Amino acid sequence: MAKGKLYLIPCLLGGEDTSILPDYNKNLLVEISVFAVENLRSARRFLRSVGYSKNFDTEVLFFEFDKHQSSQQFQQVIAALNNGKNVGIISEAGNPCIADPGFELVAKAHRQKIEVVPLVGPSSILLALIASGFNGQNFCFHGYLPIENTDRNKKLKQIENESLKSGSTQIFMETPYRNQKLFEQILQQFQAETKLCVAADITLPTQYISTQSIAAWKKENVNLHKRYVMFVVGK
Amino acid sequence: MAKGKLYLIPCLLGGEDTSILPDYNKNLLVEISVFAVENLRSARRFLRSVGYSKNFDTEVLFFEFDKHQSSQQFQQVIAALNNGKNVGIISEAGNPCIADPGFELVAKAHRQKIEVVPLVGPSSILLALIASGFNGQNFCFHGYLPIENTDRNKKLKQIENESLKSGSTQIFMETPYRNQKLFEQILQQFQAETKLCVAADITLPTQYISTQSIAAWKKENVNLHKRYVMFVVGK
Repeated sequence: MAKGKLYLIPCLLGGEDTSILPDYNKNLLVEISVFAVENLRSARRFLRSVGYSKNFDTEVLFFEFDKHQSSQQFQQVIAALNNGKNVGIISEAGNPCIADPGFELVAKAHRQKIEVVPLVGPSSILLALIASGFNGQNFCFHGYLPIENTDRNKKLKQIENESLKSGSTQIFMETPYRNQKLFEQILQQFQAETKLCVAADITLPTQYISTQSIAAWKKENVNLHKRYVMFVVGK
Repeated sequence: MAKGKLYLIPCLLGGEDTSILPDYNKNLLVEISVFAVENLRSARRFLRSVGYSKNFDTEVLFFEFDKHQSSQQFQQVIAALNNGKNVGIISEAGNPCIADPGFELVAKAHRQKIEVVPLVGPSSILLALIASGFNGQNFCFHGYLPIENTDRNKKLKQIENESLKSGSTQIFMETPYRNQKLFEQILQQFQAETKLCVAADITLPTQYISTQSIAAWKKENVNLHKRYVMFVVGK
């Protein structure tokens, strides 16, 4: 029997506009009835929003990636794939496998020679990068910064130095409720002439993307509290 | 008068399946009649493929980014934006502003407080990353590797060391006709247990994505000559 395929299914970064997702993905979802998901409720809501009509209770199997049970869940998903079932991975927002346990499942799939199919969709990292106006030929994504103040300031300095030294664009993020504080720390830590792109609420109606020097940012009055933000540093 | 917006318009990575592009982009293109493009012929072909119906000779203005004239072209595009025209940037394949002069135009737009709007579409970097099964929380993209052999081998070693040392996923690429040679060099340079993802022809019918150790790759018979490939190194 042919093995199933493991589809990496992007969802929205927020908001409700599913027209930013390709029809290809929507049409393909009809064929899938096993899902590995980061959060059951948001995965169901996402599937309904793009017109998925299977009965969740009788026709669909969901595996929720709980941090404590992931190993067992992974085994069940791999078994389904080996039994010829297509499986879709859905994370909380945007592309799966960037900041969720999905990547470990993909790694297992490769070891079992199961075909992995990434689908096109919104990536806040990539969209922030291209909209920043910085060099896209060389860039680094650092994920979430350290929470503790001393470590965070050290990391910020390291990111700025890397950008100045190599010309490589540096991207990082924080959880929404800490964004305003992080922004203020960046303004304190970075040199006046360093350039920063703030990309908030990407793909949403409230989208705000601006690239300015730290000196110019200090004169702006921007509120980033509880907004989704990518910070991009570059030349 | 309100300024125009600068839209960053992704196109296909090859092939002809425009269903992998969001309807949102297709619907929005109708509103745009000024384009800054990397290559005139492929931009026109792309626009027609997604149903764009304006007359190219009488209704549309194209600015082609020629390396030698870009500064003058940029000024004309910025003038159009300041005059209230929406402008779309279209590159040769995938997202604009990653490996084309588009990012300099975006930088100019930010300086003039012109709104920059990145649209969702296929990114071979991002798709290769999520399909690799490697850590997506920290990654670096290196663009094209040096052409000269000694420099290239040095860079490969540096990339492998960075991956082993920091656990950060490393992504790089090469022009299609050099890919087979690069692949062979990677097999020579990297340690047997280092893990490599080869992601070829992403989003095309010939798509091939596989993650294996260098030792396992040495036993495979893969032909990457003249194929589009992203190389991803990780844990």
